[in-house]
Amino acid sequence: MSKGEITRSAILDSALSLASEAGLAGATIGALADRTKMSKSGLFAHFQSKENLEIAILEEAIRRFVALVISPALAEKRGEPRVRALFDRWLAWPKHEFLPGGCVFAVAAVELDDRPGRARDVLVGAQKDWMGTLAQAARIAVDEGHFRKDLDVHQFAFEEFTLVYGTQIVHRLGLDPKPGRRLRTAFDRLVLEARNCRLVMKD
Amino acid sequence: MSKGEITRSAILDSALSLASEAGLAGATIGALADRTKMSKSGLFAHFQSKENLEIAILEEAIRRFVALVISPALAEKRGEPRVRALFDRWLAWPKHEFLPGGCVFAVAAVELDDRPGRARDVLVGAQKDWMGTLAQAARIAVDEGHFRKDLDVHQFAFEEFTLVYGTQIVHRLGLDPKPGRRLRTAFDRLVLEARNCRLVMKD
Repeated sequence: MSKGEITRSAILDSALSLASEAGLAGATIGALADRTKMSKSGLFAHFQSKENLEIAILEEAIRRFVALVISPALAEKRGEPRVRALFDRWLAWPKHEFLPGGCVFAVAAVELDDRPGRARDVLVGAQKDWMGTLAQAARIAVDEGHFRKDLDVHQFAFEEFTLVYGTQIVHRLGLDPKPGRRLRTAFDRLVLEARNCRLVMKD
Repeated sequence: MSKGEITRSAILDSALSLASEAGLAGATIGALADRTKMSKSGLFAHFQSKENLEIAILEEAIRRFVALVISPALAEKRGEPRVRALFDRWLAWPKHEFLPGGCVFAVAAVELDDRPGRARDVLVGAQKDWMGTLAQAARIAVDEGHFRKDLDVHQFAFEEFTLVYGTQIVHRLGLDPKPGRRLRTAFDRLVLEARNCRLVMKD
């Protein structure tokens, strides 16, 4: 990396942590200047605008999500093992030290859902890609014979996605003493139901 | 109702709609004065502080939620019909005309999750009560023989809750063309699995 690239990378590292804690709205050039000990004018030279800074933060988060969640999971065995690896790494994602305030996508989702613009487009594109990745992993599990042939893989991805996002609300409001355990139980049932199983009445 | 009560009720109606659109943060005494054509000083006389206004909004929302969702569902037949009535009325709740920006609890959940105080306490108490109501309805369905005896009713309530909240994110970011249909499919599966059923391998 050139000196310029190293500087930019260090700035983005700080900006990502800031957005995790204070939201994209709180990740201002001024706050970033405080955190990096750089001048505001120097940071403006890098990003030109608040909107560009927000987009740079989201793109950096996407790069790291791909590197830490998606790529290693794609190295797992095709089928259910890969489905489970994606889920496990997704749960570990907000625990990385560069996300001190939790998942930056969840924070941004709430901020951007009613704020049209380029930042929202980047976020929505990334979340659609992620839902597609979850569905594709389920599709491969069908092809491998781990999941049943008539599984609706997009429904599977939808349920996995809503479960994880909904659990964040439960966790952050403190509505259940062990949301992580409940999340795991629900996911295991989702996978069980996706296998070559059917529901029958008990005796 | 006395004249004072009628006035207060009209103010709370406006305040609730305002919070649905602009969040509790946006439901300021100034914005409420604009909307109701009342004087700021008159509104201060009613609420004394921004925090009291936020709490009054949440308490009004809780009253209406009880009147429109919980009470009518409790009049339904005990067991699965009541479980389904609670779910159906919950989905209809954000469509009431006094919530033009959607569910005020969902909006408040995002605002208050990291803001300790009396408003957060009111919200968390209401959401815990609601999770308890969902679990209790499932418990009655067990007692009535509609749901299986070994059902974890708190797990059932957790999954119903996360599904509905998670679907809101999918809906608001436009991640799925038919989130309502996917939500219904997922809930039907949840109910099916809660019945006296077990999963067996297909032939």
